[in-house]
Amino acid sequence: MPEFLTLLPPDDARIKFLAGVSARPAAAEAVDFRSALGRVLAADIIAPIALPEFPRSSVDGYAVRAADTFGASESVPAYLTLVGEVPMGRRPSFGLADGECALIHTGGMLPEGATAALMLEHSEAVNVTGGPKEDGPVPSRAQVEVRRAVADGENAIAVGEDIRQGETVIAKGAVLGPAEIGALAAIGVLSVPVAMPPVIGLISTGDEVIEPSQIPASGQVRDVNTYSLCALVRRAGGIPKSYGIIRDQLSALKTAATTALAQCDALLLTAGSSASARDLTAEVVNALGHPGVVVHGLSTRPGKPTILGICDGKAVIGLPGNPVSALVNGYLFVVPLIRQLLGALALPRPAIRARLTVNLPSAAGREDWWPVRLLAASASSSPPRRESDVELLAEPVFGKSNLIFSLVRADGLLRIEPDATGLPAGELVDVFPL
Amino acid sequence: MPEFLTLLPPDDARIKFLAGVSARPAAAEAVDFRSALGRVLAADIIAPIALPEFPRSSVDGYAVRAADTFGASESVPAYLTLVGEVPMGRRPSFGLADGECALIHTGGMLPEGATAALMLEHSEAVNVTGGPKEDGPVPSRAQVEVRRAVADGENAIAVGEDIRQGETVIAKGAVLGPAEIGALAAIGVLSVPVAMPPVIGLISTGDEVIEPSQIPASGQVRDVNTYSLCALVRRAGGIPKSYGIIRDQLSALKTAATTALAQCDALLLTAGSSASARDLTAEVVNALGHPGVVVHGLSTRPGKPTILGICDGKAVIGLPGNPVSALVNGYLFVVPLIRQLLGALALPRPAIRARLTVNLPSAAGREDWWPVRLLAASASSSPPRRESDVELLAEPVFGKSNLIFSLVRADGLLRIEPDATGLPAGELVDVFPL
Repeated sequence: MPEFLTLLPPDDARIKFLAGVSARPAAAEAVDFRSALGRVLAADIIAPIALPEFPRSSVDGYAVRAADTFGASESVPAYLTLVGEVPMGRRPSFGLADGECALIHTGGMLPEGATAALMLEHSEAVNVTGGPKEDGPVPSRAQVEVRRAVADGENAIAVGEDIRQGETVIAKGAVLGPAEIGALAAIGVLSVPVAMPPVIGLISTGDEVIEPSQIPASGQVRDVNTYSLCALVRRAGGIPKSYGIIRDQLSALKTAATTALAQCDALLLTAGSSASARDLTAEVVNALGHPGVVVHGLSTRPGKPTILGICDGKAVIGLPGNPVSALVNGYLFVVPLIRQLLGALALPRPAIRARLTVNLPSAAGREDWWPVRLLAASASSSPPRRESDVELLAEPVFGKSNLIFSLVRADGLLRIEPDATGLPAGELVDVFPL
Repeated sequence: MPEFLTLLPPDDARIKFLAGVSARPAAAEAVDFRSALGRVLAADIIAPIALPEFPRSSVDGYAVRAADTFGASESVPAYLTLVGEVPMGRRPSFGLADGECALIHTGGMLPEGATAALMLEHSEAVNVTGGPKEDGPVPSRAQVEVRRAVADGENAIAVGEDIRQGETVIAKGAVLGPAEIGALAAIGVLSVPVAMPPVIGLISTGDEVIEPSQIPASGQVRDVNTYSLCALVRRAGGIPKSYGIIRDQLSALKTAATTALAQCDALLLTAGSSASARDLTAEVVNALGHPGVVVHGLSTRPGKPTILGICDGKAVIGLPGNPVSALVNGYLFVVPLIRQLLGALALPRPAIRARLTVNLPSAAGREDWWPVRLLAASASSSPPRRESDVELLAEPVFGKSNLIFSLVRADGLLRIEPDATGLPAGELVDVFPL
């Protein structure tokens, strides 16, 4: 049987593969909101209160009854009686009757009867002796000159204007970032349900592969894939669990893989580099559960020998042994798998736009991923003043070796779409950070 | 004195501010390479070995002396004597003499005398009985038909082709990602010097602000900024250290800030929301050390009242009390500050390109940062097959309240440059993830 009967484009392969992964919901745990950064919400957060909880001023100025200001202007000002100052952090002890106003600060609570706030710069206090006392009586004749009309609600934030009580304010699947952590504090939700990180098993294979702590003899190489993929898994929100290096021998590999898959939520196998070692991976995946290999071979470079398997609902990925290929295909398949296992909402990947320095060829029908370095274009002789003034160049990192340091030298990956036959020098391209 | 004498554009403000931060190198610590994900390298990594350490085949096929294949073609093949099979992970026990070849697998070590590898598909074994034994003698008359010439070095990776011994392979200031972790494994560098995370003190002020665990009375609000900024600091690679909520009172604030700055590498103060509370922050920053406030007021929205200070070489940032403003200006100033304290090499920020749904106005001379939601354009009725087929729309999250949930509803921030007077609907814009 030929090694690759049909080669699937990576996007199609990913859809087919992820559709087969068992849809059981991720296990959840409750964590303190301060420790929830980067975690994925396992249930909707419902607001226990409205925000704001009281009507607030959004400016420094005077709380007013808007109707009292109608028609007021620079040339024909209105005059209001100043009855007090709203204290920060407390309900004012007074309300506003017709023709009255009160000094208020940004974030202060509107007194009973107030319907808007007037900015300080559109007013002037007159007849004030010594100024109003905080939350206390003011000289009886103190007045404020109003030089501009305000509408009901102007410069004020109504109760529930940010969120309503009972509203879903953060959706299941959201990744909790700084804004969400702050928002949880705002509504006093101090414990949040988040998805448990999936445990991803890793097995490296290859008769030539040794532990990094060992000194390689001639013909031996240190294990790279276990460590680059552990880091990738961790960054994507999973917990990596390494099962070490297994020889290219069917029964040993089957035994290790069976144990690992039973203990983990998904399994990554990095094949030995030879064709026969890759065939071994496929055989192991088929033996681990039903249906086994669902995608064998991708129309992509690097990553043609990638194997995607589903074994009784659990995902098993056979990555090529080449470290660059293993890591690039980790970005393409392992990261989305972990996001799906976490129940995370899909978000587009951010990229850096840059101008390609050289022509890059690509076979039609094949998707290429090139490691590229980003360089500042030196067209202008003076140093750029702002980040956005810098035009960036994307310079492919060549190297037939395809070894791990070509990725270290790169700042990101550039994609050549399957239907393109290459990209011309000067093209604006999206570079995806590694 | 007017509150804002001159308003600096954020980019200019950042350059002026960061230039004043003491340039002492960040303290370093040695960590196991497996725990170094996301850390910033504190010294260059020099390769202790070359990679590869031995000449390797990059294909499955035959190790050959390239000269023996010259002129070989489909129609006029050459014939070589098959003398053995290279074992994976070991130095072959034999060399190649003129006219000889050996079966070799991807990653296998070229035997002495071999100068290239021939791909399996350009050859055929003939007269082989039972095939060659691994690393052993083969039937004396076994031959390989060579249907294509290979050049010296073809399909082979020379010693040091990826990296040379003694070369700087990862530069000081690099952020260690999955590729770098794998690369460290490859060269057996198991402990790496990384920058100690800077400790960033946080003080929230405001008479109306209470702890999130408390039930707000009328006029009170829970502290948001401490928690959103702690998360931001942690994500940027710093260690947040909170000093709680201090009342809007000069001596209390001075005391707390002096203690915090002595214990931390930098200090963030979030002001109470009123103008007088903001003035207090400036007074405290000026009292903390020389020169004190270096930027007071930015030509940006939100963030106009932001204060940037340098106190005896340490950075002190006074952020506005408004949670959206505090967090947006955290992205603009706190994150770059932490990256500088870590000694991290600058990299451009990745963004997501999307089409703006509405006209957005902006005052000329002012930089605006709008929270926007990303939506998939629904122009096509069938679901998109690939991520790259989805056109995204950027929909501004409006809300005069400017409260924290407007950031929760957003997927990122959109920048309107200072020299623009707005952006038209339909414009392609860069959205920076939150």
